[in-house]
Amino acid sequence: MIAIGGRSALAGGTPSSSRGLGIGIEPPSSSSPKPGFVALSDLGSVNSRLSFKGSIRIKAMEGSRTVTVSETDLNTNGHAGNLGKSQSLLSSIGNSTNIQWHECSVNKVERQKLLKQKGCVIWITGLSASGKSSVACALSQILHRRGKLSYILDGDNVRHGLNRDLSFKAEDRAENIRRVGEVAKLFADAGVLCIASLISPYKRDRDACRALLPDGDFIEVFMDVPLQVCEERDPKGLYKLARAGKIKGFTGIDDPYEAPLNSEIVLTHKGGDCDSPIEMAEEVISYLEEKGFLQA
Amino acid sequence: MIAIGGRSALAGGTPSSSRGLGIGIEPPSSSSPKPGFVALSDLGSVNSRLSFKGSIRIKAMEGSRTVTVSETDLNTNGHAGNLGKSQSLLSSIGNSTNIQWHECSVNKVERQKLLKQKGCVIWITGLSASGKSSVACALSQILHRRGKLSYILDGDNVRHGLNRDLSFKAEDRAENIRRVGEVAKLFADAGVLCIASLISPYKRDRDACRALLPDGDFIEVFMDVPLQVCEERDPKGLYKLARAGKIKGFTGIDDPYEAPLNSEIVLTHKGGDCDSPIEMAEEVISYLEEKGFLQA
Repeated sequence: MIAIGGRSALAGGTPSSSRGLGIGIEPPSSSSPKPGFVALSDLGSVNSRLSFKGSIRIKAMEGSRTVTVSETDLNTNGHAGNLGKSQSLLSSIGNSTNIQWHECSVNKVERQKLLKQKGCVIWITGLSASGKSSVACALSQILHRRGKLSYILDGDNVRHGLNRDLSFKAEDRAENIRRVGEVAKLFADAGVLCIASLISPYKRDRDACRALLPDGDFIEVFMDVPLQVCEERDPKGLYKLARAGKIKGFTGIDDPYEAPLNSEIVLTHKGGDCDSPIEMAEEVISYLEEKGFLQA
Repeated sequence: MIAIGGRSALAGGTPSSSRGLGIGIEPPSSSSPKPGFVALSDLGSVNSRLSFKGSIRIKAMEGSRTVTVSETDLNTNGHAGNLGKSQSLLSSIGNSTNIQWHECSVNKVERQKLLKQKGCVIWITGLSASGKSSVACALSQILHRRGKLSYILDGDNVRHGLNRDLSFKAEDRAENIRRVGEVAKLFADAGVLCIASLISPYKRDRDACRALLPDGDFIEVFMDVPLQVCEERDPKGLYKLARAGKIKGFTGIDDPYEAPLNSEIVLTHKGGDCDSPIEMAEEVISYLEEKGFLQA
């Protein structure tokens, strides 16, 4: 007997209080599964009778809340969220007939061939006024002129939308970075050169985002501009306010910025007006070229 | 005097407990601003001395937690998260010199021209086993063969990543859909034909996602397959379990599915084996062609 149970929920709740979406599985509470518990995703690869004899807990699946089944109910693929994948379809597309579909959806490699580039995340980190956004913009322009598709994730298009529910308390700040990392991963999977431009002052948060991507696909760009220079620029007067004690917890003033030690690219301040965002962006372009990201 | 203050936070907290990211502004608590409160984004367009005489509350900005300034501190652009935008840069790209940058980053129209398509969200809704994923996969294949970039958002790539923190309680189910809608919006903005495949049983949640997109860019595809047919298919045995009372709150059985009344596309079940996902996907392709989404 395999008991599959989760949080008990009353059936037939009102639509507004009991939404029925829920594709997928319970997020794992730790990196290692608990003995006696198997995540639904693990069941996805079980295509023959389950040999597992312990207790299996599936918290929910697409359109459901609570599941309790006996072992015999799960003698085939128990994955609820993978409908249609790996199925073989014989049908016609335009003039082509009897096309066999081994892989259902288009994969990353195919998208990359279409775009003639390789999806990745270019993560620009640095102090306020270090020039992150300017480099991100210059980079997107240069890439566009070369026929490459990039997309910038920044505060404007994320904090106002996806992350509008997040406050600025500690855990929400970490969650903000986590979500940007996850979305950036999706864009990279789509084949896009995704440019994330965030202060992201803590190494732990940046490294967590790096860990989401395949090796080499997370390109950390450190804006290595001395605090003094950023403070002299101070285009918004924020450093002045921080020094005056009117902004608390300002990165670089009374909250730490943990400079990357092994970032893929370091853009250093050379002083003077010649330090254009475009020149800095060209350094990133050279890296992307060298590593083969600008071709499929 | 303009008092700009937010949640008070101790400066110099430990990195693990006081993350310093936070680009952007406090998410608005309602659609209409409270009298006497101005969001930071509103200040972004204020380039001359503020004439506002009331109290301004900025909850946080990039790299900060608490701000308190007097009115005179904000006599220029108070936007913290928009560095580099709309600035005029005279510099060189490759052999081109003195390029003037009116708009900093590449916009949606430019990306669409590059991709020769228009970004949109194709939102496939329907009962479990109604064929959503199969149509999504077929659609992505057909689009790919025509040289168009699409990306599927489904349970696998969202619940395992971005939404892994969400449980299956009511508010988290709604949040799951909200986030998918927001991410889909970003993909559409990137110029991608974004295919979201979710049961999404409640009209309110679907309409909230629709409202995120410009008119016409949210294309609701209703898999109009009778419950009886889905239940007969029952590829995962979920309906059987639901009928046996072993799954509670299963959409269509003991939780409602609110069928769309005005969806852009209705894919109806015609019966028999001829109802291929490819034929259904071709209906969506026809719509996309007719509406001009497959060209820039």
